[in-house]
Amino acid sequence: MSTWHEECGVIGLFAHESAAEMVCLGLHALQHRGQEGAGIVSFDGGRVSSHRGLGLVSDLFTPEVLGRFAGSVAVGHNRYSTTGSCRAENLQPLIAHWRRRKIALAHNGNLVNALELRREMEENGAIFQTGMDSEVIVHLLARSSGADLVERTRDALSQVSGAYSLVLSDGETLIGARDPRGFRPLCIGKLEATTVIASESCALDLVGAEYVREIAPGEMVVIDAGGLRSVPPADPVEPRHCIFEYVYFSRPDSIVFGHAVDQIRRCLGQLLAEEHPAEADIVISVPDSSNSAALGFSERSGIPFEIGLIRNHYVGRTFIQPTPRLRDLRVRIKYNPVRQVLEGKRVVVVDDSIVRGTTMRKLVKMLRRAGATEVHLRISSPPIQYPCYYGIDTPTRGELIASSHTVDEIRTYLRVDSVAYLSLENLIRSAPEGLGYCTACFHGDYPVPFETLPRKELLEEES
Amino acid sequence: MSTWHEECGVIGLFAHESAAEMVCLGLHALQHRGQEGAGIVSFDGGRVSSHRGLGLVSDLFTPEVLGRFAGSVAVGHNRYSTTGSCRAENLQPLIAHWRRRKIALAHNGNLVNALELRREMEENGAIFQTGMDSEVIVHLLARSSGADLVERTRDALSQVSGAYSLVLSDGETLIGARDPRGFRPLCIGKLEATTVIASESCALDLVGAEYVREIAPGEMVVIDAGGLRSVPPADPVEPRHCIFEYVYFSRPDSIVFGHAVDQIRRCLGQLLAEEHPAEADIVISVPDSSNSAALGFSERSGIPFEIGLIRNHYVGRTFIQPTPRLRDLRVRIKYNPVRQVLEGKRVVVVDDSIVRGTTMRKLVKMLRRAGATEVHLRISSPPIQYPCYYGIDTPTRGELIASSHTVDEIRTYLRVDSVAYLSLENLIRSAPEGLGYCTACFHGDYPVPFETLPRKELLEEES
Amino acid sequence: MSTWHEECGVIGLFAHESAAEMVCLGLHALQHRGQEGAGIVSFDGGRVSSHRGLGLVSDLFTPEVLGRFAGSVAVGHNRYSTTGSCRAENLQPLIAHWRRRKIALAHNGNLVNALELRREMEENGAIFQTGMDSEVIVHLLARSSGADLVERTRDALSQVSGAYSLVLSDGETLIGARDPRGFRPLCIGKLEATTVIASESCALDLVGAEYVREIAPGEMVVIDAGGLRSVPPADPVEPRHCIFEYVYFSRPDSIVFGHAVDQIRRCLGQLLAEEHPAEADIVISVPDSSNSAALGFSERSGIPFEIGLIRNHYVGRTFIQPTPRLRDLRVRIKYNPVRQVLEGKRVVVVDDSIVRGTTMRKLVKMLRRAGATEVHLRISSPPIQYPCYYGIDTPTRGELIASSHTVDEIRTYLRVDSVAYLSLENLIRSAPEGLGYCTACFHGDYPVPFETLPRKELLEEES
Amino acid sequence: MSTWHEECGVIGLFAHESAAEMVCLGLHALQHRGQEGAGIVSFDGGRVSSHRGLGLVSDLFTPEVLGRFAGSVAVGHNRYSTTGSCRAENLQPLIAHWRRRKIALAHNGNLVNALELRREMEENGAIFQTGMDSEVIVHLLARSSGADLVERTRDALSQVSGAYSLVLSDGETLIGARDPRGFRPLCIGKLEATTVIASESCALDLVGAEYVREIAPGEMVVIDAGGLRSVPPADPVEPRHCIFEYVYFSRPDSIVFGHAVDQIRRCLGQLLAEEHPAEADIVISVPDSSNSAALGFSERSGIPFEIGLIRNHYVGRTFIQPTPRLRDLRVRIKYNPVRQVLEGKRVVVVDDSIVRGTTMRKLVKMLRRAGATEVHLRISSPPIQYPCYYGIDTPTRGELIASSHTVDEIRTYLRVDSVAYLSLENLIRSAPEGLGYCTACFHGDYPVPFETLPRKELLEEES
Repeated sequence: MSTWHEECGVIGLFAHESAAEMVCLGLHALQHRGQEGAGIVSFDGGRVSSHRGLGLVSDLFTPEVLGRFAGSVAVGHNRYSTTGSCRAENLQPLIAHWRRRKIALAHNGNLVNALELRREMEENGAIFQTGMDSEVIVHLLARSSGADLVERTRDALSQVSGAYSLVLSDGETLIGARDPRGFRPLCIGKLEATTVIASESCALDLVGAEYVREIAPGEMVVIDAGGLRSVPPADPVEPRHCIFEYVYFSRPDSIVFGHAVDQIRRCLGQLLAEEHPAEADIVISVPDSSNSAALGFSERSGIPFEIGLIRNHYVGRTFIQPTPRLRDLRVRIKYNPVRQVLEGKRVVVVDDSIVRGTTMRKLVKMLRRAGATEVHLRISSPPIQYPCYYGIDTPTRGELIASSHTVDEIRTYLRVDSVAYLSLENLIRSAPEGLGYCTACFHGDYPVPFETLPRKELLEEES
Repeated sequence: MSTWHEECGVIGLFAHESAAEMVCLGLHALQHRGQEGAGIVSFDGGRVSSHRGLGLVSDLFTPEVLGRFAGSVAVGHNRYSTTGSCRAENLQPLIAHWRRRKIALAHNGNLVNALELRREMEENGAIFQTGMDSEVIVHLLARSSGADLVERTRDALSQVSGAYSLVLSDGETLIGARDPRGFRPLCIGKLEATTVIASESCALDLVGAEYVREIAPGEMVVIDAGGLRSVPPADPVEPRHCIFEYVYFSRPDSIVFGHAVDQIRRCLGQLLAEEHPAEADIVISVPDSSNSAALGFSERSGIPFEIGLIRNHYVGRTFIQPTPRLRDLRVRIKYNPVRQVLEGKRVVVVDDSIVRGTTMRKLVKMLRRAGATEVHLRISSPPIQYPCYYGIDTPTRGELIASSHTVDEIRTYLRVDSVAYLSLENLIRSAPEGLGYCTACFHGDYPVPFETLPRKELLEEES
Repeated sequence: MSTWHEECGVIGLFAHESAAEMVCLGLHALQHRGQEGAGIVSFDGGRVSSHRGLGLVSDLFTPEVLGRFAGSVAVGHNRYSTTGSCRAENLQPLIAHWRRRKIALAHNGNLVNALELRREMEENGAIFQTGMDSEVIVHLLARSSGADLVERTRDALSQVSGAYSLVLSDGETLIGARDPRGFRPLCIGKLEATTVIASESCALDLVGAEYVREIAPGEMVVIDAGGLRSVPPADPVEPRHCIFEYVYFSRPDSIVFGHAVDQIRRCLGQLLAEEHPAEADIVISVPDSSNSAALGFSERSGIPFEIGLIRNHYVGRTFIQPTPRLRDLRVRIKYNPVRQVLEGKRVVVVDDSIVRGTTMRKLVKMLRRAGATEVHLRISSPPIQYPCYYGIDTPTRGELIASSHTVDEIRTYLRVDSVAYLSLENLIRSAPEGLGYCTACFHGDYPVPFETLPRKELLEEES
Repeated sequence: MSTWHEECGVIGLFAHESAAEMVCLGLHALQHRGQEGAGIVSFDGGRVSSHRGLGLVSDLFTPEVLGRFAGSVAVGHNRYSTTGSCRAENLQPLIAHWRRRKIALAHNGNLVNALELRREMEENGAIFQTGMDSEVIVHLLARSSGADLVERTRDALSQVSGAYSLVLSDGETLIGARDPRGFRPLCIGKLEATTVIASESCALDLVGAEYVREIAPGEMVVIDAGGLRSVPPADPVEPRHCIFEYVYFSRPDSIVFGHAVDQIRRCLGQLLAEEHPAEADIVISVPDSSNSAALGFSERSGIPFEIGLIRNHYVGRTFIQPTPRLRDLRVRIKYNPVRQVLEGKRVVVVDDSIVRGTTMRKLVKMLRRAGATEVHLRISSPPIQYPCYYGIDTPTRGELIASSHTVDEIRTYLRVDSVAYLSLENLIRSAPEGLGYCTACFHGDYPVPFETLPRKELLEEES
């Protein structure tokens, strides 16, 4: 139920006669990583087809629109924009005209030195078309003295710092690359002669491709007519995989960073039950994001799992509260409590995280009205106290309820009988060993430094 | 996962300053009863506002559209159309100009003598505007010699036979009525001075109204400035509540026919586990429709409940298979199996019904590919062998897999290790006692007779 | 430049493989008779295709929309709605379901006893779907005891009074009919085996059909597989052709009531020059409606014709004044004066009529600013003092400037140096002899009586 | 009636509280210079509002869209695209992010060395976003070492050659500039404290501004908070004003290159009558473009001017021939001959130019069918034999009928009784003396040389 939002899902595909359709399928599977807009660019020799727009993949890419695409190489992107700057010009894939060819770039992550690089290049006459940090990569690439797209890309990426999992193509070569820390996921799949690169393996499943492996932190993978080859990182550093991909962002049926998400989430629930048991009659989830953790909690605690909240699947994304008189509507339309399940019961609610706390507060109110006698909230991650600067759309520190409130104050605010968070130790215990994680949002110790506040909004304000 | 479709959800509301907005909320809650189109009509004294269209409630009723409505009485309708005749002119509520006023009618159900009545009235000069059976009610009402809307409605309804749960208003009076058998549900709610009539109680929850009671079979409820009064049936007959409302159509968080749906569905799963046990490692549902039954099965069998299929909530309703090469896409986009849950496991899949069997066959294939070693299908209702003529959009008899195949043949077709259906006895045992049910789809013994085949399509062809 | 608006253009076509496309072309040619909305209904045996909407023909009937039509018989309609009641439900052709077939009706004119007839039928149980007077014809037709569509139509038309030029079809027969007075035009054309019935001959030109003749007042023309036959009026009365069709409504390139419009308009200008000469340097028109009359004035007076106003053809119909600060914008966007033509000149402006006077006042101001030293306004018709109740959308009497102001007061209001109207005698002298005209708008002596005020708005209010 | 198309209209406005609305009005007036798309960019301090799209100004800039604009400085553009490359990405004003500010550029004309410049800059790492030649100006500007926008613009313009009349702003300064030859027009207007720069004076009229003067060839005009100042050309060369602006492109009510268009066009008709008299009964124009010339011809020849063709103002721009069976439709829908005017007459048709001849051929056929006994075509300019490379969308040389056919062959092809063109001498005699004209389209002697063929399409192909 987190209101943290992943900023993007990316996919690239090489050598398939229906490249754009396949990429569209992948974007369907990655829709949870970004729902504000989407785009596809396909290459048919020198001819480029593209469509980008605000809205869901299924609304944007009708059969009619897909029918206009041609070519065997394609790149796609799902975007989550920060509220207020949801603008058409900021959609990806970015397309750049460059030396008689075009380049398409889809980027998941956030560069922390984009503003500095941009200012420098602007001093030298560069023209930018968008407010996105990703655009500096295209410019660095164009200015590189590298002999070909691969060398230029390596050169460009050596100058940026921060988080990037990106897919890039000029129609002849498809490149997939992750930053040296490996904040965001990116994996490789194969379907006969076709290669697919995607944020999560669930996109491979939908196009019918087989999961091959995760691209390594700092690695660049190059696919062209000659096959696939790997360009390893020049100076390997300790990886910092975003642990929140396991807690919330990725789909449970995905393999992310080389490991199955569902199993990890189940384990989070189990350890949560051990660490913070509750006296209760039933365990419920906030469907669908905390289903796995809630099942884990139920399993370990022995308290039966029940479906206490029904989620309405037909809520339009564009729903706007019609009148001030009708409050809390978005939550009420999205979730309805099942009175017969809840009435007279002591309820454990398992959720993945609390950001601002406002939605959870409304849900608790609904549960009580439906007859729950006690509500015990169990969160399968530690309190979020710091914003993420590596690609997640987070509120400012001040808006994060845990940065300014004690657990007890949060309990009072949410009007629950008890609230407890999984410890960082148990979170790390649940995740695969030896990967190396970024857990900065829990303690503020950021693995990649930045001088100025590297938020996208700054880029936009100044540009 | 049933591909049987409820044909409509209806709602009426009396005395609320934001009548149309409230009705819109109710239609959100009733979206599962009809997703092809929706409509709202509101009355502000003599002035009528209306909007009807094809699509989801959230797409049709934007704040801008809602802002154009005025008045304190409103009627709403969600429609499921039969494939191929999804036409804008067949949307409801029906609006009729009649004697210096307008009447709006929303109807859930199907009249079995509509064609005969229509032909007769056309002989006498009546003009019809649509192909809907519901239109005959408006004409009967206009031709009645009754003194007021109530008498005329009673007169009109005395002439039609079949299934109807309807809401009707001329802006001064709001009428709710159910046919003598009570096939379809219709209940009453109160929110301060406001009265709401809706197909299911989940619509009351969303508008914040309290559930009062079900309208009785054959009863007509009249709400006007003087309050609410009941017109009891002239000749009570034995009721025939549609038992499939409990199996599949209604939302689990609703009270339908006076009883909580979730509890009944849970019980279906429990009895199914008793009647048809399976040797297996896990129980999974086809989310979200069979969740309750699967939990019941797990509970009674002791086999752990797992989430083995992830449902993609972003699938657009307008999704059309892009190319013939990419088969089974709709199912694959909608559901993705969780390999980590399924791999190496003997799986019990609990579902509510099998209509044609085509979707289930694809799901089973997906489960096996994800590593399930055995698939045991358990259905929480008996085999559907006969079409419904009382308001459900069913395929012809020939298309119902159970009408022409034995259970063993079905097992072979679906490629499952075992398949078993709940018996009619256990289905009835699970449902509340003493209500009286229509179970014609299981045995073909139709409670309300019809001479000619009463399908909507006939009306359209001939008109 | 008149702001009187014709309410409709109608067209029907029998026996052409692309019936809907041909009708669409005809509606293009008749666009000047109604620009608020349009509709086409085509018949392909029992199958009916239709599209009706608000907007211009070229916007509504895209190749894609036209591609959905099938059949060899079609009926079309252009509508001008009165301001404020421009509602989608009032679009034509009307479609009625009636005894296993459908009927499409397109009506130009206004019935003066529609309200009485409607009330009577509603007493007997009739249901109306729109606020249009035309709908009573369909009901009368359905209630008739006539043996076939032709007899029923004759029967129905014998009961209505007022103005109607209508086209009607059930797919097998196409009927064209004019009221006994013949207020509105309706003519017949032939293109090989195809028969076309249209408001004006310019529609025949566009579909490539040859003009045959005007349908006579009171005549009904029936086209079916057996050919074309005429049903003459039962009781011929003295005709009352709307003389304003010659002054303003019809296109100058049309033959209307059997005579060429351009020649008559030219003659109006000539007699105007004789009756009200002016001392001036140039004669200009208000393009394009008064071009013919201005040329006639120039010819007879010897004062050279000049183009002093340029009309902007790209003004969208939906243009709305953006801010109150920018006044008179619609006029200024539509017309721009040519300073080089006007500067230092005494200018005769010839226009066809003055309704409210507001637009002319703005134009005069523009002419003076562009350097005209004197402005002499010459109107090619008498002062309009009474509303039309036979199918023209006129303001109320109070809004007609000539009903409450003397010619001298009008001169002062418009700020012109002189203003003069053609006399009724000269108007009638210009028009073809022996036809019989309605000139009620000039003197208020209405040829068809009505008890209550027969305005469309009344129907809508009461229904 | 020419099918040569002006490629653009531009407008800029400084210091008006409703800058975008005013620019929108100006674009309405300039709609004839480009009808494929339009755009407006406004500046409110650092905040930029913009909207660009395909379609007419009135369709794109609804009150709702205009309401979103803020700021007191704005730039607008109407675009005519070459067929086939009518793409959204090629719309103007161009917007470039550059050093914490944005720049908007609107360009009318065509640069002949854009491709060379672009290739050079791409070698140095520049990224282009569009296929438009205008984009090189923005890049040159960004790369300039000039101290401010004015110096940078001067620097950039010193490097390009070809035709440009452009308007440029960064929100603080508004710049208007014309190339040294002055191919395309650009004039200055004042409305109180507001300065307007526009392609033609008709745009000034509509916003209520007074015409001040034409910007001189090679001049750059700079408007900022300090007022207006002029930057004269460094090295003045002999001007080459496009003489076709007088023949066809500009609106007759405009002042262009400092002179009134209508008077010049009238003179063209007069000299045409002297040079190529005809024995005929009437003179007609092809409305509205040749009205002035036809009046001049009538005046000098003494043959009466008549309106023989009616133009349908409602033809949608998106009209597409519905079926191959219905040929010549676009012409037939756009123009209808007036039989009463034409029948039995010897007709002089005055038109401004013949490009391919196909449309004229259809018109002649229509005139003959309407009864014209003789058709004498008189063209108010010499034969067009060479394409324009300075901003007009012309067909290739091979498609220009006059480049490969003698006048006599053209007569035969068009099926006219005689055809005659105005001589180049008389064309120049009609135009204001001492301006200096480009007449390359008549003889192929291009005033600004180019090595490679400088067509926009090349840029697009290669980029």
